[in-house]
This record gives sequence, C-alpha cells and structure tokens, in this order.
Amino acid sequence: MLILMQTDHTKKQLKDVLAKVKALKLKPHVIPGKLNVAVGITGNSGALDPHLFDAMPGVREAVRVSKSYKLAGRDFQHHDTIVPVGPFGIGGPGLIVIAGPCAVETEEQMLRIARRVKAAGAQMLRGGAFKPRTSPYAFQGLGKKGLQLLALAKKETGLPIVTEILDQRTLADVAEFADVLQVGARNMQNFALLKELGQLKKPVMLKRGLSATLDEWLMSAEYLLSEGNKNIFLCERGIRAFSDHARNTLDLNVVPAVKELSHLPIIVDPSHATGVRARVAPMARAAVAAGAHGVMIEVHDRPDQALCDGPQALHPDDFATLMIDLAAIAGALGRGMATPALKGRG
Amino acid sequence: MLILMQTDHTKKQLKDVLAKVKALKLKPHVIPGKLNVAVGITGNSGALDPHLFDAMPGVREAVRVSKSYKLAGRDFQHHDTIVPVGPFGIGGPGLIVIAGPCAVETEEQMLRIARRVKAAGAQMLRGGAFKPRTSPYAFQGLGKKGLQLLALAKKETGLPIVTEILDQRTLADVAEFADVLQVGARNMQNFALLKELGQLKKPVMLKRGLSATLDEWLMSAEYLLSEGNKNIFLCERGIRAFSDHARNTLDLNVVPAVKELSHLPIIVDPSHATGVRARVAPMARAAVAAGAHGVMIEVHDRPDQALCDGPQALHPDDFATLMIDLAAIAGALGRGMATPALKGRG
Amino acid sequence: MLILMQTDHTKKQLKDVLAKVKALKLKPHVIPGKLNVAVGITGNSGALDPHLFDAMPGVREAVRVSKSYKLAGRDFQHHDTIVPVGPFGIGGPGLIVIAGPCAVETEEQMLRIARRVKAAGAQMLRGGAFKPRTSPYAFQGLGKKGLQLLALAKKETGLPIVTEILDQRTLADVAEFADVLQVGARNMQNFALLKELGQLKKPVMLKRGLSATLDEWLMSAEYLLSEGNKNIFLCERGIRAFSDHARNTLDLNVVPAVKELSHLPIIVDPSHATGVRARVAPMARAAVAAGAHGVMIEVHDRPDQALCDGPQALHPDDFATLMIDLAAIAGALGRGMATPALKGRG
Amino acid sequence: MLILMQTDHTKKQLKDVLAKVKALKLKPHVIPGKLNVAVGITGNSGALDPHLFDAMPGVREAVRVSKSYKLAGRDFQHHDTIVPVGPFGIGGPGLIVIAGPCAVETEEQMLRIARRVKAAGAQMLRGGAFKPRTSPYAFQGLGKKGLQLLALAKKETGLPIVTEILDQRTLADVAEFADVLQVGARNMQNFALLKELGQLKKPVMLKRGLSATLDEWLMSAEYLLSEGNKNIFLCERGIRAFSDHARNTLDLNVVPAVKELSHLPIIVDPSHATGVRARVAPMARAAVAAGAHGVMIEVHDRPDQALCDGPQALHPDDFATLMIDLAAIAGALGRGMATPALKGRG
Repeated sequence: MLILMQTDHTKKQLKDVLAKVKALKLKPHVIPGKLNVAVGITGNSGALDPHLFDAMPGVREAVRVSKSYKLAGRDFQHHDTIVPVGPFGIGGPGLIVIAGPCAVETEEQMLRIARRVKAAGAQMLRGGAFKPRTSPYAFQGLGKKGLQLLALAKKETGLPIVTEILDQRTLADVAEFADVLQVGARNMQNFALLKELGQLKKPVMLKRGLSATLDEWLMSAEYLLSEGNKNIFLCERGIRAFSDHARNTLDLNVVPAVKELSHLPIIVDPSHATGVRARVAPMARAAVAAGAHGVMIEVHDRPDQALCDGPQALHPDDFATLMIDLAAIAGALGRGMATPALKGRG
Repeated sequence: MLILMQTDHTKKQLKDVLAKVKALKLKPHVIPGKLNVAVGITGNSGALDPHLFDAMPGVREAVRVSKSYKLAGRDFQHHDTIVPVGPFGIGGPGLIVIAGPCAVETEEQMLRIARRVKAAGAQMLRGGAFKPRTSPYAFQGLGKKGLQLLALAKKETGLPIVTEILDQRTLADVAEFADVLQVGARNMQNFALLKELGQLKKPVMLKRGLSATLDEWLMSAEYLLSEGNKNIFLCERGIRAFSDHARNTLDLNVVPAVKELSHLPIIVDPSHATGVRARVAPMARAAVAAGAHGVMIEVHDRPDQALCDGPQALHPDDFATLMIDLAAIAGALGRGMATPALKGRG
Repeated sequence: MLILMQTDHTKKQLKDVLAKVKALKLKPHVIPGKLNVAVGITGNSGALDPHLFDAMPGVREAVRVSKSYKLAGRDFQHHDTIVPVGPFGIGGPGLIVIAGPCAVETEEQMLRIARRVKAAGAQMLRGGAFKPRTSPYAFQGLGKKGLQLLALAKKETGLPIVTEILDQRTLADVAEFADVLQVGARNMQNFALLKELGQLKKPVMLKRGLSATLDEWLMSAEYLLSEGNKNIFLCERGIRAFSDHARNTLDLNVVPAVKELSHLPIIVDPSHATGVRARVAPMARAAVAAGAHGVMIEVHDRPDQALCDGPQALHPDDFATLMIDLAAIAGALGRGMATPALKGRG
Repeated sequence: MLILMQTDHTKKQLKDVLAKVKALKLKPHVIPGKLNVAVGITGNSGALDPHLFDAMPGVREAVRVSKSYKLAGRDFQHHDTIVPVGPFGIGGPGLIVIAGPCAVETEEQMLRIARRVKAAGAQMLRGGAFKPRTSPYAFQGLGKKGLQLLALAKKETGLPIVTEILDQRTLADVAEFADVLQVGARNMQNFALLKELGQLKKPVMLKRGLSATLDEWLMSAEYLLSEGNKNIFLCERGIRAFSDHARNTLDLNVVPAVKELSHLPIIVDPSHATGVRARVAPMARAAVAAGAHGVMIEVHDRPDQALCDGPQALHPDDFATLMIDLAAIAGALGRGMATPALKGRG
C-alpha cells in the first residue's frame, strides 16, 4: 500500500496517517519528493483496503501496490537512488568501473593490480578475500589476511574496496574493511545473511542469482531495504540458460527492465558472465550502451598464475583499452565517466 | 585420486599409504568394502600423479578421479549409502515417505496432521519452523516455538522430524530438535552453512538448487561429506525452466543419473515442484516408478487456512490414497514400503 | 467463443445458431456430448461479444474462451479423444506402446526388429524413412525405399506404422504408407506443414518442440484441428533446459497438465529425451505412472551398427523386460495394456 | 576434412586432389584465399583419414575439422563473408540497418513507413507478406499481394526487400520479390525448406531458433552452404529462458562467439527479442556495441492499428533518434554506417 499525500497537506495530517498505520501494527515509510510526499506501508502479509486511508484529510489517494516488492519499486520512490561510495555516487549519469582481481593472492599482486586499474581510470577496487567455490577442494580465499591486503591497496591508491561477504560469522570483519559488501549470486536468497546486511548502513552490491527472475531479485533487495539499509545497488552477472557458448548468459535485457521498475542502480559483471577473456570487452561495451550505471571487470597481470578464474581476467593493458572504449560509448550517449565531483546523496 | 589396495594387502602397507598421503599435506579417507579397501584423497587442488602411489607395496592401482566430486561418487564408494533415521534407513529398497505441513502453525494443527500422516503410513514427519520466503513480508515461521511443537508431535507419534535449517545462528537449536536437517534449494550453495552442517553427525537432506547441475549438486554434497558427515541424502524438487504449466519442472531424469553416479540416496519432492495439488500424486507415482528412494509430500487438513503453500498440500484422505498407489507401484517393481525392521548401517 | 445449448434445445434452434455464426463469416463446430451440445466458433481474430448469442432461443450460455486454443481444449470437448489406429485406440485406459528402430536401414533389420517388438507386446511399429538431422552430412534416411520396407514389416506383423513427415513435397508418399504421421519436435511450428496435415484424415502424432510451452503446443494442435483433422495425439519428448546429465529434460509434469487442459491423448518418448539406454526404462515406467496414454520406445537388436541414435536404443530383450514392468505399473493403477478389442471412435 | 595446399602448389596438384576427393564419392569445395588455397570436403558421414591426402604433392596439411560444421567455420574460411544486397554488403565494418513494419498491411502503410525509414537512414526494408503465427486464428499476412506491395515500396524508395519464407509451396513467389529471404526462428531446423533455399543464389537471413545452441545454428547454415548458397547471414532474435521480464532473452553473448567461430555475418533483432517498444533502443545500441554487423528494427507509424506486434514497433521519430545513437556508437568504436560505396564480393 502506498499513500499519496495532497500537495498542500499539513504536518498534522501526515502525522495522523502515520499514527493510523502504526495502530494497525504496520510500518510507515515517509518518502519525501520534490512535489509530493508519499507514505509506503510494509509489514502487511495480505492486501490492505485503500478505504482505510483514502478518506483521511490530506490524503490524495491510497494505492494498492500490485508488485510484491514495495521499497525497491518506482512506485515507492520515483527518483533514482544514488549510492555514495567514497567520493563517487553509483546510480547517476557518470559511469562507474569497479576492477581488480578475482581473488586477493599476495600483497604484491594486489598492489600491482590496484595501481594499474587506478591508472586506467577505475574508480573502485575489487578483490575476493572469502571466495565461494563450487568445490570444497578449491582455493577458498585468504580470509582475514586478504581483507588486510585490500586495506593496504586502498591506503596506497585511495580506491574504495568492493569485496564479497558469504558467511554470517565473518560479517563484522568484512564490514570493517569493505566499502561495498558484495552478495554473490549463490547467496541472493540467503535470507539470514540479507537480514544482517540490511541492518548495516554500508553499501551492498546484490548480484542476481543464476536463475532469479527480476521479481525475485528485487524481493531480495527488499529484504535489505526493509531492514533499513538504503544503499543498495544491483549487479547482473549472467543467468543459466541452455546455451553452451558462454559460461552464463549475460542478460542485458534486464538493464532497461530494472531501470523502469526500480530506482536502484544496476551495474553489469561481464567477466563472470562470459568466463572468457575475449568476450569480456564486447559485453562490457554492450552493457554501457544498454544503459548500465557501471561495470565490474576482473583484471590480472599474470592470469596464468591466478588462483581463481584466470581465463576471464583482462590484462591491465587490455583493460586500459576497454576503459577508452567505454568512455567513448558513454560520451556518444551523452554520459561520461563518474568523477569524484559527483557526490552521492545517500 | 583414489588408491585401490590389493585384496591381500597388509595393515602395514595400508598404514604406509596413509602416511604418504599425510606427508603430502593431503587428507586420506579409508573406505572399507566387502572385497577391497580403497583410500580416497582430498585436499589437492589440482591433479595428483598416480605414480606417487601405484608402485607402493599393497597398492593395486592409483586412479585419477575425473569427476570434480570424490566422496560423493560411485568410484569412491560402490555400495549404496543408507542413512539411518530413527528405525528406518533411507537409501535401501524400502520406500520412505516424509509427510506433513509446509509450516508448523499451531500445536493442534501439527498434532492433527501428524496423526493422519502416520495413520496413512508415512515414516517421517516434516514441518517448517524457520521458513525461507521470497518476500520479507511473508510468514517467516514460528521459529524456536515451531521446533518445540515438532518435538511434541514426535513425542506423540514417534515419527522422526525433518525440518529446515537456514541460518547459521539457529543451527544449534534446529539440530537439537531435528532428526534430519533440511537444506533448501536456495541454500544449496550456501557454503558457510554447509561447512557447519558437515561437522554435525546428524542426517542432512540436501535439496537441489533451482538451477543446479548434477555436478554442482554433488559438489555441495561433497562439502558436507568432506567435513566428515556421511549421513547425507539428496532431494530433487524441480528446476527452473521456461515452462509455465507448473511452478517448477520436476526433473525425474536426475533420479537414475544420481543412482548411477553417486552412492547417496535420492528422494523427490513433487509438492514444491508442481505447486498444484492435482499434479502432486501423478508426479509422486512417477518418482517411485523412476526409482527414487522416497518422496516428500506436503499434507494439510485445512489447506485454505494454511499459512504457507496451501494450494499444493494434499488433504490427508488424498494422501492416504496416494500411499496405497505408491505401495502398489513399489510392489509391481519388486520393492515395498520401508519398515522399521530395515535398519540403516550409517 | 463457445456456445452451450440448453439440454432441451430444438434442432431449429441449433440451426439458427449455426446460421448466425456463418453470417458473421465465422466457422461453427458442433460438438455433441452425452448431455449437452456445444458449438465452438473459430475464425475470429479478436474476442467476440457473448451477447451476440446468449439471448437466442435454445442457448444456455455463450462463453468467452480465454485460452488461445479452442478446439484442443477441454472447454470445447469434455470427453477424451480416442484416436483409432488399426484395431487400437490411443487415448483410452489401455496403454499403447510404439516401438521400433530410430531409422529404417534394411529389409532384414526392419523385419527382425518388427518381429521382436510384436512378440514383446508392442501394438505399433515405428521407423524413420525420412530423418531430420542436425547435420546435412548425417544419414538422412532411406526415403521412399524406407517407406516400402515399413510396408513389408506391417504386412508380416500386422503392426500399424508410425513414421515421420518432414517435407511438404513428400507428404503424399508418407501418407500413403503411414498409419500415423509423426511431426517431429523441430517441425512443431512448421505451420505450412501443419496446415497440409490438417487436411488429411490420417492420425497425426505431434511432438512437442524443444522449447514449446504447453500453450504453444496446443496451438499447433489447433492448426491441425482447425483444418478438420480430429485424429491428433501429442508426444512429450524432452525439453531444453540447462541440465547436462541427460540429452533433454523429459518433462513428465506436462502429462497431467495436458490431461487437465486438453482432451487430446498424450504419450511419452523417453528414448529421445534421455539419449541414454540405461535411463530409458526408468523414464518409461515413470511416464506410465504419471498417467501417459502410451510410450514410444526405440529398439534395435544391433545398436552398435545403428545408423542413427544407437546409444539410446533398447535391446529387444530389455524391451521385453520393460513391457512387463509397464504392464505391472499399469495394473497397479487399475489400467492395462491396450487390446484390439478397444476400438477408437474416431 | 580440410586440405591446405602449399603456397606454391601447381594447378595440376590441385586438380589431382580434387580428383581424389571425387573418387571417394565426396564433394570438394575450393576456397581461394589471399595466400593459401584450401579444399573443404563434405559428404563424409564419419571422420576421414588425413593420410589419404597429406602425402600428395602440393598438399601442406590435411586437417580433421572437429566442429560438426565445416563450411560455416573459420577453419574453412578465414576471412569474413560479406553478403551483397543491392549496393550494400552485410558483414563488413559498415553497420546495416533493416527496418520496416512487422507485416505488410496496405499500400499506403508500406509506402509511408518505407519513406520514413529511408529518410532516417535505413539501408533495407523489411515487411512480412507471409506471417508465421502461433495461432491459426491470427492474421496470417497478405500473401502474394503483400509481396507486390513490397515491390512497390522498393520501386519508390530503392530499398532492398527482406521478407520471410515459410512454405516450400510459395518459395518461387517469395524468391521473385525478395532481395533477402528470411528464415524465421521456428523454421531454423525445417531442413526441407533449408535445402531448397540452399539451391537458390539469393541471400538468406537465418534467424536463430528459440532454443538453438550456437552449434545447431551453424549446422543449419551448413545446410544452406552445403547446397551451394554462400550468401548467408545470421540473425540473433532472443532465446527462451526462464526470465519473464522480456518476451525472449536477447543473447548478445552470441555475437562475439559467432564472430570467433564463423565467417558469416551476424545481425541482431531486438524488436522480437524484447517485445516491448521501450527496450528496443537500449538493446539495439548494445548490439552495435557488442560488434553486430547490423540490426533489424520494427517500425510502424500507427502501432495501435498494427495487425501484428504493434507493441514492439518503434515510431518513425524514435527510430530516427535511434539511428543517430547507433551511428554515434559505431563511430566511437571506429566504425560507421554502411554506405552504397561498400560493395559486397559475393
């Protein structure tokens, strides 16, 4: 349920509406807009009767929200969310590029690669300290030591850190070091983890599950939003289809769909989607042309020695070339790379 | 790597092999068989050289295991695993039927339904105390109170309890009350949870993820097995395909495939797969005819009032009819219902 | 649009309704039932107004049919269609088994296999004379010569012939020799071919396309029905999903769905679905347990020499064992094998 | 099998190779290149022994082609195929845009829209005279009359005509009027139709089937190529996946994959893939950024009155805006719009 207040409503009228929502044991969310104030209601399991509210003074209309998500939807918030990360905002016209290795391996490796991606223009640094691996026998990441190496790389380059969280037990550690906590595709519906992340205020990047519909994805964002964390952005990383010519099927169709239905920013990860170095650049270019707010690219200067996903990592030189192409496409469409001047609003 | 010992090897020879494995910083797993003893090796990230072992005294052959899973595979253990649950064994010729409501709602509801499914011949009772829900606004289960109601129902009927675990924080509570801990489809690759469950000795039912390949599913079982828990069985519950005539596409093809490649038992959940009451019985019958070791069926005597998934719940009368059909099909194929006489071997 | 006549309507009233339909340049289809007569209307591109008919004398109700198919739906015809093929009817309680090699190869091969499948109890013989092959370099079938060999096998065994049609140019030839014309998965939406087959009166077996929804499948049946051919039955043969443990994913869920929504018979082809001999029998048993009206099984006595799909062909001995299992399952569910006594009604 | 001739081979040596191929009852295909001549061999059902050829004078190497396709692969032809259509070549650096209505409706409609798309810069005109429709009751196209209207539009605008062929019986008619014959997704494996089209010399646009793997798609191209028609280009139009946020899932990943494995040009149809007007432009832009040789866009000036697929048609004004964006993206990547100066080589 969404209650749209009249343009000239009084503070008293709004207060009465909020009181009534609380009397129903439900939770009101005031959403101030340029012209209108709206009140979102959550906590009801079934549909609410609009007549409970639409005759109240100051109320223009009470609208049943047919989508199962509320806080994540455009009906709830018309304007785009911009998630502030360091000096940058994700979700505005400026393109964000997150780059770095799949996994943190050594201090030297992280620093070398961090310098290269910064030099090429990336605004944020990625690197996995805790790695979700299909096999229990595969490299599981350096753990807390990896977090410390990310901190070193941040200290030297100034790049904010994006790293994955996959265990409730290590949440506090990861949250201490990360600027953005990444929820991987396999944990998109790990609701216990989502609830804990929703209680943080740190930005969360929510990857789409391999077989998640758009509705399910936004419902997982809703878990984060309904716990109070508004700094959420989405990341498309390929879905599972029958195709065998790529590791996953990057679903760029979802980019305009997300932008239509939700106010949350959306970026694209072509590295995990394709799994093949030669296809990363074409798909990164396509993501920007389709309107994504950013891309996340795996970069490694010694991919043959990488402990994880070497075959999909771009060499820093190729990454620098890609950055130029992305800037050119963004420019052709009236956009540009995000700059520190563009501050997020929270 | 799998080391097959000669039939007449000595204890000393086996001990030497184990010592060499440990010297390589790897983990040996002795697998005693009727005729042969084998030693599985885990912990290696890449392939091992068979020549490291095949010239040692008492060793018949050292075999590279091409599958990514080891402990879950038939190469590692030829005979079928039988998981003991109360007086029953899951994985033998006797058919196991787990039945009960989607969610624990009230004491009366649980007791009424538990009595009915026991009367119809079910050997185990299901009921969700913690519910994974796509929406944060949907009923999330009674929590610990639900576990206590399950204990009551067990006390009265003697039926072992199958219930879902979805949060590392509540693992100890659930493990205290459950005879089988169910890992749901959405958590099939929640590796942090799997590792903790692997350290328990309690039986775990691992549901297949919506878009999991057979290999990925067995790799998740491998997470449990490699931590030391051998009481694992699998549950097919439908995959995500393009079809719109059922909620999910129950993939019965996987039943003979699992039985060929793995020694782990496999049961089928037609209730979640179809999502529609009228299709549960045909698919349950088909599962038994395809060779599943058991089925899990949702039953509710007042489905219109169910707090969760009412439309797919069978009425107890229809469940009783289904039990008769399942017994008849099992009989036609030379099998029967599992009886308490059939004890698992662990 | 479907017009339900009153139980006591007069011939004159029915005639008036038919005249009005024709005056609207639409096509009426009278469907006589035990208690009711209904008139289906086809030829309208958009929705018709029920008020055009429901005030006419003798009309009980005019119903908008929301499904896109009409003639294929249960709303149009409540009772099950039974397709007569030789002395058998497909669609009744008696189970139909169609068996034979993938492709007609030689006279000896056809006669040997035909004798074996007849001896085991199959009621119809399959064999491809024209083969649809993914590769232009693969064996394309014996063509017309293959049809003549099928005729020889029919003459000797009496088994009706099921064979594939895949070219409008050879339709007359195939129709001359076939008792059932098979439309393969790849041609399910070859509408030009469907229209020509609809104008024949011969039975058509319409296989489901690899990625066809149930609705699309029934719409293709509608192409056949709307041209006047009522002797149509469906065949599920596996869909394309992400799974890699079977060639295709046999979707048995569709069996109860078809039986609920349509009056057309449905059989199952586990051979093409699984592509692997060892999985054919479990899936055939499951198909019968799920309620299919029949199964189609590939059988070859020298599978290693087969020119097409040898790996999925059952040996005649294994086929005979399977027949016994299928009869046992059918018996357990109150059905039996179809016998010549059961004549179709056309 | 592919035979690579030495750079300095003699005519006689080549002739001997061709003679030997024919003596084996196989078909040789000479492929002249800038530096090398190669001879492709087709007609063999199994693998050929390279030793049959590699000791012959003038032969550098005989290579087994592991891919199931041969003529469609890069191994067979290194350089890009450029398909000549009117004064344009499809497959070169210049971007090709095919635009027009889904279906030919009236003379006025075709002329109005043809003028608009030409004015905006489209190089070719599309329009369906024969329409493949899921429902037999939907508008099936104007048929031969539609072809004549396309001819009128071509006469006035000079735009070459792209139109669909879906019936062997109307092939001669369509071939008379079309500059490019389009094979729709549903007919991608209608092998009878493909064989007849392969015997024409007219350009064929082969759309990808809804569930076709890349290998199957190229094998269908192989049907056309092996009959002698080399003027083939491919069109990606969305695959069937589980997603429900778009009609189909446009698989742009296939663009770089096709360009890597095949020499055939590939264009993209975002209109059918998305089914929604607002998503056509983002996906068209993405297709160009991903490296497609062209796009095909549905345009209608009165979409609400369109007889077919109105909701996905762009208004001519929006199409003109899109053309500017596409040119800008092409420019940013060092390409441009195809111009008449760029002639195909056939």
